[in-house]
Amino acid sequence: MERYDIAIIGTGPAGLEAAITARIRNKKIILFGNKNLSLKVEKAHTIQNYLGLPDIGGEELKAAYEAHLKAMDIEITEDKINAVYAMGEYFALQGNGTNYEAQTVILATGVSTAKAYPGEEQFLGRGVSYCATCDAPLYRGKIAAIIGFSPKEEAEADFMAEMADKVYYIPMYEADVNVADSVEVLREKPVSVEGSLKVQELVTDRNRYDVDGVFFLRESVSPAQLVPGLKIEDNHIAVDRQMRTNLAGCFACGDAVGAPYQYIKSAGEGNVAALSAVAYLAEKKRLSK
Amino acid sequence: MERYDIAIIGTGPAGLEAAITARIRNKKIILFGNKNLSLKVEKAHTIQNYLGLPDIGGEELKAAYEAHLKAMDIEITEDKINAVYAMGEYFALQGNGTNYEAQTVILATGVSTAKAYPGEEQFLGRGVSYCATCDAPLYRGKIAAIIGFSPKEEAEADFMAEMADKVYYIPMYEADVNVADSVEVLREKPVSVEGSLKVQELVTDRNRYDVDGVFFLRESVSPAQLVPGLKIEDNHIAVDRQMRTNLAGCFACGDAVGAPYQYIKSAGEGNVAALSAVAYLAEKKRLSK
Repeated sequence: MERYDIAIIGTGPAGLEAAITARIRNKKIILFGNKNLSLKVEKAHTIQNYLGLPDIGGEELKAAYEAHLKAMDIEITEDKINAVYAMGEYFALQGNGTNYEAQTVILATGVSTAKAYPGEEQFLGRGVSYCATCDAPLYRGKIAAIIGFSPKEEAEADFMAEMADKVYYIPMYEADVNVADSVEVLREKPVSVEGSLKVQELVTDRNRYDVDGVFFLRESVSPAQLVPGLKIEDNHIAVDRQMRTNLAGCFACGDAVGAPYQYIKSAGEGNVAALSAVAYLAEKKRLSK
Repeated sequence: MERYDIAIIGTGPAGLEAAITARIRNKKIILFGNKNLSLKVEKAHTIQNYLGLPDIGGEELKAAYEAHLKAMDIEITEDKINAVYAMGEYFALQGNGTNYEAQTVILATGVSTAKAYPGEEQFLGRGVSYCATCDAPLYRGKIAAIIGFSPKEEAEADFMAEMADKVYYIPMYEADVNVADSVEVLREKPVSVEGSLKVQELVTDRNRYDVDGVFFLRESVSPAQLVPGLKIEDNHIAVDRQMRTNLAGCFACGDAVGAPYQYIKSAGEGNVAALSAVAYLAEKKRLSK
């Protein structure tokens, strides 16, 4: 498998700046995120304090970022990373169906507003999962509940329905739902996941459902769930001034590491994270000689 | 005396971003520096990694910064700050002839390449000084040596000559020197400052001179000399992730707090420093109620 020098997760200002800086330093990078970059940037009204770009609108700033990516010939890989595992010599990144390897990882995943549901973290890996595509084969003859936070998760429900005996789909949005006939759509609010050794029930505000698995398909996975073992402080990834996390080779930057939630602060940290990753790679190479 | 909310020292990217962010938060600020902003920015060739401004030249970046200052109606005060004293309730800033007061201070003074001469720090305040204009009245009937790092310090030598009995002027540059006839110009290299309780001699590579005071007039004063009591680590101002120094109400950002020396990193830190100063002011106000 191709192994990248640096995998960057997130296409807000922190991730983009990290990618640009790493590319300038001739590193082999892969940048995961959204080709629309960041919804937050795009939807911003006027930004007054991005030094050098006075009074810029969100769409203009997004266009400026796109021009910069183009100038540096940086592509965005639109895969959602569901898990990052520290394997010692490298990191294994689990996408939706594709896996990746990288020597270092930069987390620029933004601030996660999602709170875990009761039971969610407790049963993670024991019936709770964040990737239906990845786990569908395990659900032959079983019952799965899929909690979709955006209409694009409907395809995951359909795919699961091809394998599982029974699929519940709970949309966390108001738009119409278009899923296969075999999928049962529940317009209810999830309350908790329950069970003893593994998931047995999904509890909603109206009912209890016997299930073998519950899938929370959010726009982003919280850092603690994304990277097992990652140190979190006050709901943010703990980093030092060099943007190093507690895991060697894993760096973080931007809103994910804490307030203030400001574009220029995130960009500055992305720069530092990339240069720290570059220094880490150089040191690793030196020691291996 | 007028008391500012935030005094910012330095007009590189860190100081400018701090000023802009503080102004947006409606703070009464004063920004000390050079109307040419930063020589380092201006002289830069292409900057590739300032996110949003791909492949920008130093002069263009400087112009973008100037446009931003103008849009925010921010003026630069071209006074050199020679000392910052923590007075408890506020900070006293000593300029060249003018003094200022501010509730908080943001140091964005850049990286200081100047090494102190032997004896310089030892005799600081006991014959060694960084502001001839400030101390000239103390030199009536005495002997002063002025070490000037740029031609604009010649005026300081002339002013000193009006008070002191004898003035030596040592230019640290090659250009012609134009000073009053009473000033003795020495084309020699300073080696050390010597004395017992206070300064008694200036030693050069060619000679020893009996003096009562030695003035080092550099472009910038090193942070440790600028702010008595400031904690320095590895030649940089020690800060935490909120850009707080060891002195309450005193913040620092940019190259002054350490590598990487990158514009976008400095700007990001200036943003954080300003918002930390704003939070500090709010907390101070709350506690005083």
